[in-house]
Amino acid sequence: MILVINGPNLNLLGQREPDVYGAATLSDLETACENWGKELGTEVECRQSNHEGQLLEWLHGAEAEGATGIILNAGGYTHTSVALRDAVSGINIPVIEVHLSNIHARESFRHHSYLAAVCLGSIVGLGFAGYRAALHILVERETDTRA
Amino acid sequence: MILVINGPNLNLLGQREPDVYGAATLSDLETACENWGKELGTEVECRQSNHEGQLLEWLHGAEAEGATGIILNAGGYTHTSVALRDAVSGINIPVIEVHLSNIHARESFRHHSYLAAVCLGSIVGLGFAGYRAALHILVERETDTRA
Amino acid sequence: MILVINGPNLNLLGQREPDVYGAATLSDLETACENWGKELGTEVECRQSNHEGQLLEWLHGAEAEGATGIILNAGGYTHTSVALRDAVSGINIPVIEVHLSNIHARESFRHHSYLAAVCLGSIVGLGFAGYRAALHILVERETDTRA
Amino acid sequence: MILVINGPNLNLLGQREPDVYGAATLSDLETACENWGKELGTEVECRQSNHEGQLLEWLHGAEAEGATGIILNAGGYTHTSVALRDAVSGINIPVIEVHLSNIHARESFRHHSYLAAVCLGSIVGLGFAGYRAALHILVERETDTRA
Amino acid sequence: MILVINGPNLNLLGQREPDVYGAATLSDLETACENWGKELGTEVECRQSNHEGQLLEWLHGAEAEGATGIILNAGGYTHTSVALRDAVSGINIPVIEVHLSNIHARESFRHHSYLAAVCLGSIVGLGFAGYRAALHILVERETDTRA
Amino acid sequence: MILVINGPNLNLLGQREPDVYGAATLSDLETACENWGKELGTEVECRQSNHEGQLLEWLHGAEAEGATGIILNAGGYTHTSVALRDAVSGINIPVIEVHLSNIHARESFRHHSYLAAVCLGSIVGLGFAGYRAALHILVERETDTRA
Amino acid sequence: MILVINGPNLNLLGQREPDVYGAATLSDLETACENWGKELGTEVECRQSNHEGQLLEWLHGAEAEGATGIILNAGGYTHTSVALRDAVSGINIPVIEVHLSNIHARESFRHHSYLAAVCLGSIVGLGFAGYRAALHILVERETDTRA
Amino acid sequence: MILVINGPNLNLLGQREPDVYGAATLSDLETACENWGKELGTEVECRQSNHEGQLLEWLHGAEAEGATGIILNAGGYTHTSVALRDAVSGINIPVIEVHLSNIHARESFRHHSYLAAVCLGSIVGLGFAGYRAALHILVERETDTRA
Amino acid sequence: MILVINGPNLNLLGQREPDVYGAATLSDLETACENWGKELGTEVECRQSNHEGQLLEWLHGAEAEGATGIILNAGGYTHTSVALRDAVSGINIPVIEVHLSNIHARESFRHHSYLAAVCLGSIVGLGFAGYRAALHILVERETDTRA
Amino acid sequence: MILVINGPNLNLLGQREPDVYGAATLSDLETACENWGKELGTEVECRQSNHEGQLLEWLHGAEAEGATGIILNAGGYTHTSVALRDAVSGINIPVIEVHLSNIHARESFRHHSYLAAVCLGSIVGLGFAGYRAALHILVERETDTRA
Amino acid sequence: MILVINGPNLNLLGQREPDVYGAATLSDLETACENWGKELGTEVECRQSNHEGQLLEWLHGAEAEGATGIILNAGGYTHTSVALRDAVSGINIPVIEVHLSNIHARESFRHHSYLAAVCLGSIVGLGFAGYRAALHILVERETDTRA
Amino acid sequence: MILVINGPNLNLLGQREPDVYGAATLSDLETACENWGKELGTEVECRQSNHEGQLLEWLHGAEAEGATGIILNAGGYTHTSVALRDAVSGINIPVIEVHLSNIHARESFRHHSYLAAVCLGSIVGLGFAGYRAALHILVERETDTRA
Repeated sequence: MILVINGPNLNLLGQREPDVYGAATLSDLETACENWGKELGTEVECRQSNHEGQLLEWLHGAEAEGATGIILNAGGYTHTSVALRDAVSGINIPVIEVHLSNIHARESFRHHSYLAAVCLGSIVGLGFAGYRAALHILVERETDTRA
Repeated sequence: MILVINGPNLNLLGQREPDVYGAATLSDLETACENWGKELGTEVECRQSNHEGQLLEWLHGAEAEGATGIILNAGGYTHTSVALRDAVSGINIPVIEVHLSNIHARESFRHHSYLAAVCLGSIVGLGFAGYRAALHILVERETDTRA
Repeated sequence: MILVINGPNLNLLGQREPDVYGAATLSDLETACENWGKELGTEVECRQSNHEGQLLEWLHGAEAEGATGIILNAGGYTHTSVALRDAVSGINIPVIEVHLSNIHARESFRHHSYLAAVCLGSIVGLGFAGYRAALHILVERETDTRA
Repeated sequence: MILVINGPNLNLLGQREPDVYGAATLSDLETACENWGKELGTEVECRQSNHEGQLLEWLHGAEAEGATGIILNAGGYTHTSVALRDAVSGINIPVIEVHLSNIHARESFRHHSYLAAVCLGSIVGLGFAGYRAALHILVERETDTRA
Repeated sequence: MILVINGPNLNLLGQREPDVYGAATLSDLETACENWGKELGTEVECRQSNHEGQLLEWLHGAEAEGATGIILNAGGYTHTSVALRDAVSGINIPVIEVHLSNIHARESFRHHSYLAAVCLGSIVGLGFAGYRAALHILVERETDTRA
Repeated sequence: MILVINGPNLNLLGQREPDVYGAATLSDLETACENWGKELGTEVECRQSNHEGQLLEWLHGAEAEGATGIILNAGGYTHTSVALRDAVSGINIPVIEVHLSNIHARESFRHHSYLAAVCLGSIVGLGFAGYRAALHILVERETDTRA
Repeated sequence: MILVINGPNLNLLGQREPDVYGAATLSDLETACENWGKELGTEVECRQSNHEGQLLEWLHGAEAEGATGIILNAGGYTHTSVALRDAVSGINIPVIEVHLSNIHARESFRHHSYLAAVCLGSIVGLGFAGYRAALHILVERETDTRA
Repeated sequence: MILVINGPNLNLLGQREPDVYGAATLSDLETACENWGKELGTEVECRQSNHEGQLLEWLHGAEAEGATGIILNAGGYTHTSVALRDAVSGINIPVIEVHLSNIHARESFRHHSYLAAVCLGSIVGLGFAGYRAALHILVERETDTRA
Repeated sequence: MILVINGPNLNLLGQREPDVYGAATLSDLETACENWGKELGTEVECRQSNHEGQLLEWLHGAEAEGATGIILNAGGYTHTSVALRDAVSGINIPVIEVHLSNIHARESFRHHSYLAAVCLGSIVGLGFAGYRAALHILVERETDTRA
Repeated sequence: MILVINGPNLNLLGQREPDVYGAATLSDLETACENWGKELGTEVECRQSNHEGQLLEWLHGAEAEGATGIILNAGGYTHTSVALRDAVSGINIPVIEVHLSNIHARESFRHHSYLAAVCLGSIVGLGFAGYRAALHILVERETDTRA
Repeated sequence: MILVINGPNLNLLGQREPDVYGAATLSDLETACENWGKELGTEVECRQSNHEGQLLEWLHGAEAEGATGIILNAGGYTHTSVALRDAVSGINIPVIEVHLSNIHARESFRHHSYLAAVCLGSIVGLGFAGYRAALHILVERETDTRA
Repeated sequence: MILVINGPNLNLLGQREPDVYGAATLSDLETACENWGKELGTEVECRQSNHEGQLLEWLHGAEAEGATGIILNAGGYTHTSVALRDAVSGINIPVIEVHLSNIHARESFRHHSYLAAVCLGSIVGLGFAGYRAALHILVERETDTRA
């Protein structure tokens, strides 16, 4: 199972700065992820929280829940949370960081991610397709491991 | 309706560093805001939370609750929260940032606010009267819009 | 008496960057301040100068002229003048710093004010209404002191 | 009573980066603290939370609960939370900051603590023994005060 | 046609720091890209140069050659070349930045990319699969445009 | 009419650091500008002041005086005056920044100009000929506009 | 003879970011320079390269080719090339740095030039006319030297 | 003749921050300087201005007025004025910088002086006696030169 | 044997800034350490020097003298001495860094320790009790090793 | 008695960089100080050491030796020694910092003094006369205290 | 065989800034290296290029050409080229960095080398003799390896 | 005679961090230097001290002792000692800075040397062979001078 975790303000998707984020909603994104999971033959579980502590606990519990990979879009916490970084490096399953918009083309405080260094990799600025790519890669690794 | 949101540690008002913040309590502040609201002919709803996630969700839900303006004193999160900044810029109602004490006369890490750039404006160092002024201005805008 | 001091380039109001500052002129602002003063039962004296030395001397002389509070919009000198800071901390009457536009949403060199730390407080980004709020607060203090 | 507060990710103890943190668990740590408390003749109450808001509220409520001292290991929030700093300086009981690992020998963003300046002191890099030392010192102060 | 441009030192692939980059060679990577192109129904053209000027000229000429998208791994020039940034923003076809290794987990001078802000997006740390993902996305856009 | 405004210390020309600035005086410079104006068929008006406020007011009044372009050598104020920057961006006629010496080959605090970003352009280090070039360009624009 | 050297991406002129650079092409610019040369009675030789090494070698060889002055627009290399700086200071003929756009009004990494300190002077933001002015000044010096 | 120039806010002496500056007034200081001048057999001329432009012009004119040395306390302009620095290095008589209070024990922006590097030397934190020492030294140099 | 090394100015204890350091003297501290040693069944040897070279040599010789652990309060050298850091990392016995006062609540140059990263851990701001805690921990390790 | 302490390399006076420091020797300086002491009716004791530890101990012992003031030229240690700063603030007699050359006109690492903030004041760049001025001021204070 | 690679502008040797680099030419340097090679019993191959890409490719190909060590003077690219650093760490033969002039005594941007950390070592400021020393050391290692 | 001065902690050679510094001791290094001296026909005198003051005095006295060159490995003082820098620039014999390990490949505070700019040159990271090379070069200069 692949866990897709969206962080603060992503529940506003479709309504927040539509020129930056487009008109599709969080629900659209989660449905897309689930469908891509089906195509790739894996279960996808999607969650969103605005609470840093909740995000931490989903990361902590992921392995016990059977997750073999995590897609993490930590929103604004990306740039400020050492606690999330510690959680990512404290667990034993691969995490791919995803951002919908191109954070490098925005304010300078968005150019640094506390998470990037401890994730497997990052996909930035490619919209929903970034989630699909991350999913694809995590499923491949899952398959490699199972084999 | 104007929403007054107080953030972390403001529940300690009257007890925390009284030489900086004075002896009046959060309850005194909220009562004052409600009374000023009555004088100005608008409803005022006051809330306080120490949870960043809760503050985010009050901002997200404000418009649906009928708020036409928000007064936000985000306390210590002012200086560290990109997530709150994103919430303020992700909603469609004006937010005024208020601080009771003069943050520019304190430690240098209090001189920068992640919120200021995305709020309508800021009122700093003027105690309870800062809330009254913010209320006054938001009510005027509310009236202008209704007219 | 409350002294309203506007600094460099504020004489261009209504003509300079109207998308930032609006179409009202300095004269409109000064008339508004005088009228608000009448409503609040206090005399308001408005001045503008482009000369840093003149601004210093108005601050120096304010107490002797009978001022009980000062509203100071020091324009571009806000960000560069240690001399103005020294004048504000060298006199014995409260000063409130006001800016028409939201300086925190503009170039980074406008984010720092040499004056903020030595003023009673700051009101930023709220247009003419910022002057009215400052006036209201200074008059209250004046009344408290007289009582 | 001495309150021992552990912050984000400390519930992973024994499982997270065992080369840095060792194999003992949070439960082992809490049992050790309680036993040391017994030896020192004081009650020890241990809590852990991943929620910054919860940590704030435990600090706020400590005095009312009868705590005479607090041992705080705020994990990743140590380096990013002005709100926690405000809570520590807003209460009237001594707080000692403890870190299991040597934060000064790790990434540079771990070298700065927002809490250190407002705590009584800090004990860093000495593992469980750091908690014991903090406990010892807080009990002594408690005794001094009661005498 | 999608152009895959690899920059300086990528000809060493398989031989340079194999613990970082693995044992597969540039030729393996290029073959993989061509095969993925076939699966996606698009032509893929792969090139590598150690010369900044050559990279610039391939970018300049891409549109005239019929490219509808570019995958760019600029190697060490990523972090130092304003000229490459200017070339990317000076052409009218989308560019996706790809890095094999996780540049955010390496020396700090690799954390900044001059290219990221002017590319469509970035894929970092995901090995060959990052190229496949980029290819997939560019082909989709190509199809959308042709439709 | 083109206004040539020289700022602080330029009255010392010919006498101040002659190895940097040469032996010609301000009067020589102004005569040269007037003569070049005649050759170009435009009136040139030259002024110098050591007072920042005076420089501001000449900029404010230039349009009303009939100026169609301004050449501004703000001397030491170049590096320190936000007020002058605001004046340049607050008026509607083009300003070209000129410096006699090569400020980039001198102390590092001379490398930054508050004015450059809001002027049409800058000419640095080319002595009197820099004024001539600026004049030439402003007259061309004047002609284009009149046509 | 005056050598006009244009650096990386200037071959895109007329096509790259036309709102910044206008619609005229490199060929238009070079023709203009040659014509101005004729008016001034001097030969003008124009070259463009995207290769840093080529630019270095044109600078190295200029004197032997008979050049008495060089106009250098090093494009993006301006901000990153110590090697070009060394070449400019290693030759014995005057170099004037020219930029078409106002680099000081763009991204902060464009505000610093490695070349400015070792050139005779700089002309920035004045379009083609900047080249004409540089040409004029270099021809004058050439004449002075010949005399 | 030795010129003693006091800058902005020094007219407040005796009234501004008396815990920092003491109770003696500017007039007391000037009388003391004149008396010390008499003892040392030299004329002392004292002036104060809050206008940067005026300070510049006194420096410019000092030599023509017969001054053989200048004592300069530029107050807040010390830390912000490149123009004053240029004036000091543009004249041919020695200038000694004096500050009444210990600027190194105050806010960090007071630790840097634009003037120090171009003055003969600096005397800081020694009150009126600093002026006397400067006077003594300038008179000695005057005598050496006359001899 | 445990070596307790106190560095520069600690001989002033009891006399230097008593509001920061209290009234007890170095001799009191050393007696306390020796007594704690007796309680813990280990010999404690205390030394103090103001000479960096002497401190280096005590560290170098500690193992040969039979020390099994070192408590090091390097005073002001903590913040400036790479040589002491090299000595600590060059020897094979554990060193615990101790500071009497809370260095994080003092000037910013005291916030960084060159020693912390190479010591076993640090105890800061807890007065004499910090030495006792360090002693306790080093004796435990000594016992573990002997067992 | 006034103690004159010269630090590292001042024994080279007269021989080290004579264009900066002149031809007079340390012995000349010490004789001058002793003679000025006689004129002022106070004993002057001069010492020099290249050892930081020795300088510390002379400061520690000064009061016991009967010193009522100290003149300190700490040479290169001025810019690097927190230990010396602590010694100066740990003793109860006034210290004046003196430098022969103008440290503000030299390399930037000489612009900061760790000592300045804790000394009574500083005299910089005025050669031997700086010592005389410091002596004069310390003797006056001595007299004031004795009176 | 030892490869000696000289980078940009070194072809100007003898003609560029002769006060810094002396009058000997690149050809003199190469002849000297070849002669030293003969004395040491090893072949020396010397090359120079102004093209970063060429330098990269010589590094890439060195092992295949039979080189057992490389002497690299990358000129201005030393301070700006991550690509060269990657090439040095991507090959398996030792590289010694050499600079003719003392780069630490020149502009601050020359104080940092991207290459130093990945080379075996650096020899700076010792002229031609630095090449000889590097040659000597590389030949020794060659011999050690062959043995 | 050539003086070889080793600074703090170099007496630990062979025992301190042997993976960085190897197993050879200081005595081995000194013997090697003396032997190389014999081969080169010059006397070599080797000294080591952990005392900054002692190092200063050896530098001061070197010329009087007959030294014609100095090899200086100042260990940790390299990065922190302005006093040593002043000593090196205060004497008249050439000094070559040597470091055994590659300081540029270690912690960032080791990348800066206060000494490099005032030494003849530096040899870094080449072990004992670096001393031999320095010796060779100093002997050559000695010979040149004697000739």
